[in-house]
Amino acid sequence: MKKEFTVTPWEVSGNVDYERLIKEFGVTLIDANMRYKLVKTHPLLRRGLYFSHRDFDLWLERAEKGKKISVITGRGPSDKMHIGHLVPFLVAKSLQEQFDCEVFIPISDDEKFYVKEEVTFEKVLAYAQDNILDIIALGFKRGKTYIFEDFVYTNIYTYAAQIAKRITYSTSKAVFGLKPEDNVGWSFYPAMQAAHILFPQFLRGKHLSVVPVAIDQDPFIRVTRDISTHKDFQFEKPAALHSKFMPSLDGGAKMSASDTTSKVIYLSDNLEEVKKKINKYAFSGGKDTIEDHRKHGGNPDIDVSFQYLRYLFEPDDQKLGKIESDYRSGKLLTSELKSILIEKIFLFLKEHQKRKEQAKRNVEKFILK
Amino acid sequence: MKKEFTVTPWEVSGNVDYERLIKEFGVTLIDANMRYKLVKTHPLLRRGLYFSHRDFDLWLERAEKGKKISVITGRGPSDKMHIGHLVPFLVAKSLQEQFDCEVFIPISDDEKFYVKEEVTFEKVLAYAQDNILDIIALGFKRGKTYIFEDFVYTNIYTYAAQIAKRITYSTSKAVFGLKPEDNVGWSFYPAMQAAHILFPQFLRGKHLSVVPVAIDQDPFIRVTRDISTHKDFQFEKPAALHSKFMPSLDGGAKMSASDTTSKVIYLSDNLEEVKKKINKYAFSGGKDTIEDHRKHGGNPDIDVSFQYLRYLFEPDDQKLGKIESDYRSGKLLTSELKSILIEKIFLFLKEHQKRKEQAKRNVEKFILK
Repeated sequence: MKKEFTVTPWEVSGNVDYERLIKEFGVTLIDANMRYKLVKTHPLLRRGLYFSHRDFDLWLERAEKGKKISVITGRGPSDKMHIGHLVPFLVAKSLQEQFDCEVFIPISDDEKFYVKEEVTFEKVLAYAQDNILDIIALGFKRGKTYIFEDFVYTNIYTYAAQIAKRITYSTSKAVFGLKPEDNVGWSFYPAMQAAHILFPQFLRGKHLSVVPVAIDQDPFIRVTRDISTHKDFQFEKPAALHSKFMPSLDGGAKMSASDTTSKVIYLSDNLEEVKKKINKYAFSGGKDTIEDHRKHGGNPDIDVSFQYLRYLFEPDDQKLGKIESDYRSGKLLTSELKSILIEKIFLFLKEHQKRKEQAKRNVEKFILK
Repeated sequence: MKKEFTVTPWEVSGNVDYERLIKEFGVTLIDANMRYKLVKTHPLLRRGLYFSHRDFDLWLERAEKGKKISVITGRGPSDKMHIGHLVPFLVAKSLQEQFDCEVFIPISDDEKFYVKEEVTFEKVLAYAQDNILDIIALGFKRGKTYIFEDFVYTNIYTYAAQIAKRITYSTSKAVFGLKPEDNVGWSFYPAMQAAHILFPQFLRGKHLSVVPVAIDQDPFIRVTRDISTHKDFQFEKPAALHSKFMPSLDGGAKMSASDTTSKVIYLSDNLEEVKKKINKYAFSGGKDTIEDHRKHGGNPDIDVSFQYLRYLFEPDDQKLGKIESDYRSGKLLTSELKSILIEKIFLFLKEHQKRKEQAKRNVEKFILK
């Protein structure tokens, strides 16, 4: 009997069967041919955290032919950012580097304000400012990257309104799981989200834009694709790249904003915090005793530290391969694997925090107002 | 048996019993004391088209004490304007003249765009531009009057969002009669409308603002008053001034935007059009034959031409009194009454159209962007 699981934009639980999800959602597996074309991109793409897509083959074809293409991915600023939040941005940056395309980054301060009671208007603006610096620090190209915040670049309302006219409350309710007691900001937000996804086309005219997104967000993509070809717009259906869920430190199905501080590595963490969190909380695929581990080896497939190295912190395929085989054979202990990860994260965060400081001087060059 | 009637924001029908409405809505009749204070204001106010209120006594008190007060009234630009549309603006202008207060005029292009299928985004922007000129032409004070259009002054979205967080879909649905098949622009619009009404306080801080409005719009006022004191805002509950319905040319209960061209006098009409419409369509309180009229007299209370003179075009109380008694006695024929009205409307429109041309040069001085 298959274990039951749930994947909706507002709930992810159980042991996710991605094969079944592909069929249910009607999306396409990223195949060998596409992987070949992505061999130089970020590990997240070439090592399969991104596993399915809509029309991304077409996007790659257009890119190769020098046609206009773009990437769009955003952030809801309800807290400071952790390493899990980097996933779509690292992919976007990687696509920008390989294909020299424009990247559009909507900051949905309104969404987080509507959805989270405790997030005040002032707080969400402050989180947005902080998150924007983290995003710029990743190294997006100046003059090819546009960050816009709904409560600042309020002109986005004119695009959202045009879409809102074409989404009924029934549709919004069904796709987004709205309840009557939810506020009317939520009711409207699907239109705003579609406006984000179609923004590159509103701004630059009809072209193919790809949205890197976790698979649970695909219903939003579907609604937007349906609307995009309406006679009011006559846009291209946006493409999508779907990721599996990056596990939380303790091996939970999805790294979530509502996870407690102890389960996530913030981009602002220092070495001590990283050490403590990885050593204490990172779910291990190793055996209970050193003797047992040496004898039978560990399981990197379920080891969170290994997954973090694989998807985020060890871009070198040979080095990663050695870590994997050493861990599987028992030569590498869990504590040693964790030390490797801690060192990698520490170096990344040190550099990131420096670049975030520098970003304060450049922020205006990325912001639409 | 009382004749049944309906008064909701989306339907006005039957013979409206205003006495009963005052009780049902829980509003207050404008009393003799208030009328005395309004003796110099526009006929619409002093001759009773405006008949009830919420907290307008308090507003007048504050005005007399030199406290901060303001007026807010808006326009949904779905067509060119007719004389019925002038009602709240003439009242606002009159209050501004008497009390030297600021007037805020939201132009809800988004509302009309959401609600009317045939009104495209481009069309609603064009109507807004045209309507704004008509409004400025009425003679509002420069530097004390602020016109803002939702699709242009999109910063209004930040205020609407703060209110949206405090309106559930249930509330919106109940008060505004939303259906599941209505688009999500409608769902959100109540928040935008409350943002319009509270805008003077968002901009200038807590003070008492009055909204001149037809009585059917009172449910919007009620929702806004409820929200205004929420701890997020801590504003004053806005006051309201309620008007009865200005009859359409043929004597219908409410001059409506959906009336056919023949039933309304547009601000752009020329003399020939005015003549034709008044002579042909204006519902008469006169008798069927001249003989009968001379003998029994006409009924000014149901005569549309007389109502237009009373509320809009004959400010002189003595002159109006003479017209009324002459008509009631049979001395004045319907055709003569209509001629008086035609002349008055013609003079008004001639001046208005000239001032509208002049307004094109001053428009920037009234617009928030």
